[in-house]
Amino acid sequence: MEGLNGNLYTDLYQLSMGQAYFEKNRHENIASFDYFFRKIPFNGGYVITVGLEDVIEALENFRFTKEEIEYLESIGFKPDYLKYLKKLKFTGDVYAVPEGGVVFPQEPVVRVVAPMIEAQLVETMLLNLMNYQSLIATKAARIRHVANGRPLAEFGMRRAHGWGAMQASRAAVIGGFDSTSNVLAGKYYGIPVTGTMAHSYIQSHDEELTAFRNFAEARPEKCVLLVDTYDTLRSGLPNAIKVAKEMRSRGQELNGIRLDSGDLAYLSREARKMLNENDLEDVKIVASNQLDEGVIKSLQEQNSAIDIYGVGTNLVVGKPDSALDGVYKLAYADNKPRLKISENIKKLTLPGMKRVHRFTNNEGQFVADVIATLDEKIPEKMIHPYELDKEMSLKGFEGKELLNQVMKNGERTFDKRSLDELKDAVQSNLSSLPDEHKRFNNPHIYKVGISQNLLKLRQDLKNQKTSKL
Amino acid sequence: MEGLNGNLYTDLYQLSMGQAYFEKNRHENIASFDYFFRKIPFNGGYVITVGLEDVIEALENFRFTKEEIEYLESIGFKPDYLKYLKKLKFTGDVYAVPEGGVVFPQEPVVRVVAPMIEAQLVETMLLNLMNYQSLIATKAARIRHVANGRPLAEFGMRRAHGWGAMQASRAAVIGGFDSTSNVLAGKYYGIPVTGTMAHSYIQSHDEELTAFRNFAEARPEKCVLLVDTYDTLRSGLPNAIKVAKEMRSRGQELNGIRLDSGDLAYLSREARKMLNENDLEDVKIVASNQLDEGVIKSLQEQNSAIDIYGVGTNLVVGKPDSALDGVYKLAYADNKPRLKISENIKKLTLPGMKRVHRFTNNEGQFVADVIATLDEKIPEKMIHPYELDKEMSLKGFEGKELLNQVMKNGERTFDKRSLDELKDAVQSNLSSLPDEHKRFNNPHIYKVGISQNLLKLRQDLKNQKTSKL
Repeated sequence: MEGLNGNLYTDLYQLSMGQAYFEKNRHENIASFDYFFRKIPFNGGYVITVGLEDVIEALENFRFTKEEIEYLESIGFKPDYLKYLKKLKFTGDVYAVPEGGVVFPQEPVVRVVAPMIEAQLVETMLLNLMNYQSLIATKAARIRHVANGRPLAEFGMRRAHGWGAMQASRAAVIGGFDSTSNVLAGKYYGIPVTGTMAHSYIQSHDEELTAFRNFAEARPEKCVLLVDTYDTLRSGLPNAIKVAKEMRSRGQELNGIRLDSGDLAYLSREARKMLNENDLEDVKIVASNQLDEGVIKSLQEQNSAIDIYGVGTNLVVGKPDSALDGVYKLAYADNKPRLKISENIKKLTLPGMKRVHRFTNNEGQFVADVIATLDEKIPEKMIHPYELDKEMSLKGFEGKELLNQVMKNGERTFDKRSLDELKDAVQSNLSSLPDEHKRFNNPHIYKVGISQNLLKLRQDLKNQKTSKL
Repeated sequence: MEGLNGNLYTDLYQLSMGQAYFEKNRHENIASFDYFFRKIPFNGGYVITVGLEDVIEALENFRFTKEEIEYLESIGFKPDYLKYLKKLKFTGDVYAVPEGGVVFPQEPVVRVVAPMIEAQLVETMLLNLMNYQSLIATKAARIRHVANGRPLAEFGMRRAHGWGAMQASRAAVIGGFDSTSNVLAGKYYGIPVTGTMAHSYIQSHDEELTAFRNFAEARPEKCVLLVDTYDTLRSGLPNAIKVAKEMRSRGQELNGIRLDSGDLAYLSREARKMLNENDLEDVKIVASNQLDEGVIKSLQEQNSAIDIYGVGTNLVVGKPDSALDGVYKLAYADNKPRLKISENIKKLTLPGMKRVHRFTNNEGQFVADVIATLDEKIPEKMIHPYELDKEMSLKGFEGKELLNQVMKNGERTFDKRSLDELKDAVQSNLSSLPDEHKRFNNPHIYKVGISQNLLKLRQDLKNQKTSKL
């Protein structure tokens, strides 16, 4: 959307730091930043990375308009700097795990190599788009995992965080959902849109049966009737069955019924029975009402007869975590690797420009990821990033680079993929992730290590910094 | 933003139901919907209602563009209906608690009275904008409550839910924050923007002192130095003090230092001591790092020396609830009050068009709210909405209508207020709410009752519906 990607879609301090770099003529020195996260949400075993396409689009269109420059002038930025900003484009290189990839804590997911000022100004936009979409795609993938092939519809717009509803729909579909109720997202991103009817529609009629009949006449294609307004089994179902038969006599077929309250496992089984007794085996049962991966897992285990799940709030707000803790840290500037030190070894950053190698076994299953310096060969062993006595040999496994170049000199070098392709990529990546990382209870921690060279670089820089204190 | 308010910013089923109303020529019959919520988030005692201004703006601009109509055609809507939509404007009346009001579960916060199709099509937009902004304004008000007059800065853009970052900044400021780091929100809503510097800026220099000096030269106004990159008390503070003195020798003053890690209570007290020993009493101490109302309360109780709080993630994602459960329910259609029945009495809706009367005592403190039918006098007693044996006399209290007409025939009748006015309204409303509803631990439940007339109407309609089953 106009104005919402890039440019002023940033924190003020990025523009302040930009001015400070500009005034010391350091703004065009090359810097490298890493986007990574520290903690997997949902007590899960993996994160699905989503948001990159929006980031690339924002970087390609990164320009300050006249109006934006005037605003920046009004809040005190200096004329020389603004004159420079007016002409600024993003000219950097971007390396990233392609959207839909399975990623883990600490490893760089996006690497931006660009003149310092450009790399700095785009930080907030990148974090905003990557953090939220990755959170939601991960939640969606978890729901996909338990839904056992059943269609999933995203219904969360009313509880989504304002305009974030747009990113919610996109990320949900990439993560494994089949459709959204959000019409604008349907148009903007090309996502299939679906929906049923609301209780208000039924209530606005004196009789439930009339409401069903009117709706079926107006929207006979993919008609789904909401059956729980008065009494699911005594009123809603019998009326829906009546209308389904009337439709059939007109050569039409009722698509489904929707349950939105009560014991969904029991009601769905009873509904299935009643529908089948009336020769309506093809009428689908849609269920909604505060669903998430836990509830759906339980419904599946109870042999419920639900064919389609509609998921809203818990998906789009990413409950219970509601945020992915992704950060964007400086790793290289002015021809030197850079380290952020901390008393907490887990908050030490990994300095310098880096590659990530993913190792697979001979069945093609992911075994471990290793973060290494840019200039070393594929490592043959890896070390735990914080528990330095833990090592693992990588012999016998095949290593492949995880980050691809997606932009060069500010231009896209990686083909845009359709949402369907991205959705397939997620499922294909997840199929290479061993099951023990996908289970919900205490998933096995996927191994991410660092190379010996990178460890040495980190130690040297740390000693250098702390010796000065 | 273009396209993001109204029109296609809706769930598909609204448009489907619209077509069904249209085909039976019921679409222009007057309907009335209530927006209300059922549960107060954060285990709190009140909700601050925010989002109305965005809703009014969307309703005023409610038009389908040619492009939007074409999209609807492509997904199967019929030509006659689309021809109608092409000319559709919002022509209804809207009554609402003005933005910044203190509201409680069950009571109508917004009432939309409009031709059925209009009232239906705007539902999702209204819910999306009201639910999220009310959630965030409520969180912000809680933080304001404990911050004891200290300035509050919203720093959450990087963890906000995509473009919802825009609504986050607006709602945070109305709820009691003083500024945002989000530059686009600053420009779009006229919110003061603030910010400091990032660790990356310090790391990009070989020496912390050089980084501070460069920044102070480039941005001497409101310069805040981040002091925890290497060692807060041994490196950051001494360097910041050095730069503050250099600034003073140039006739400038350092505005502040920022702490972003470690024990903020201890570090802030030590920092204050060091600053004061160097005659830098006016240098402010800014703190950030996973703050929320609980942490800030604790910091205040520990006599920390923090002058300004920066709050990010926990505010903008509304942790731990992350959603307000606001709904939009049909109360009146085709000249009749309408009820949504449920086996759970708490999910019975309140039928018909209604007023809400707020009663205050002679000190001007809020005592109770009563939901009544449109055509009755101010009630003299109220009944608990679910525990029907609980009654309360309202004699001796002054009753005043809570909902104001804000739109008439599709046009605004309520003046737009500035964010400063809205912010003042919140504090003024909260000052009339007794303390026992504002405390964090088991806040006293504010009384919301219904009138005898409304109870009778609900009972009659319920009996009528259930007798048919």
